Amino acid sequence: MAVTLHVCITCRAGETLGDGEPTPGSRLHKAIAEIGAPEGVNIVPIECLSACNNGCSVALSAPGRWSYVYGRMSEANARDILAGAAAYAAAPDGIVPWRTRPEVFRKQSLARIPPLSLPEAAE
Amino acid sequence: MAVTLHVCITCRAGETLGDGEPTPGSRLHKAIAEIGAPEGVNIVPIECLSACNNGCSVALSAPGRWSYVYGRMSEANARDILAGAAAYAAAPDGIVPWRTRPEVFRKQSLARIPPLSLPEAAE
Repeated sequence: MAVTLHVCITCRAGETLGDGEPTPGSRLHKAIAEIGAPEGVNIVPIECLSACNNGCSVALSAPGRWSYVYGRMSEANARDILAGAAAYAAAPDGIVPWRTRPEVFRKQSLARIPPLSLPEAAE
Repeated sequence: MAVTLHVCITCRAGETLGDGEPTPGSRLHKAIAEIGAPEGVNIVPIECLSACNNGCSVALSAPGRWSYVYGRMSEANARDILAGAAAYAAAPDGIVPWRTRPEVFRKQSLARIPPLSLPEAAE
């Protein structure tokens, strides 16, 4: 299944930027895009994931799956983010065993949101 | 459109609990459920929204809409959470004008995730 990796490109991650200086979010997106999307992953830049106190942030989502948001990311995490996205895409239900998630995903979760198709959602 | 308000019921919000003592998350869910769902809102308890450092947490989502996660909530916020959920349900696109969102939503956003049907998501 194709999954989406949203990367917040407006995030300043608490930095004071000079005129025209790229945001940490846009630098993170560039680093991720330069490595390139793994199979089944769409890399999508987005303006603000409203996780500004924990930027930079990225989100993984796909139809019928839990969505995940991770924060406090930087360009140094680009490869790990893509490895985590690839594992999410490859897992039949999007649920990657805890121990096989990249450490930055295990330690820097901001939130997860259930899919709308869960039986509970019909309550 | 019917929207879903997920309430994390496992959250301990940093508290040490005695045997059988209800979690802060379950107390928040009870307070919300007792007030009752506004029109168009389904209240759904969920085990862990992975926002443990910022619990208690709740999430709003609906097909084709941005999802929102809010944290550092308690029973005292139950009415505000429901007011925010009602506004989300009533907004045709789920985007509630900033100034009309409850203060706890304006100040305690953990993250938002774009809908998968955004044009960008097709990239």
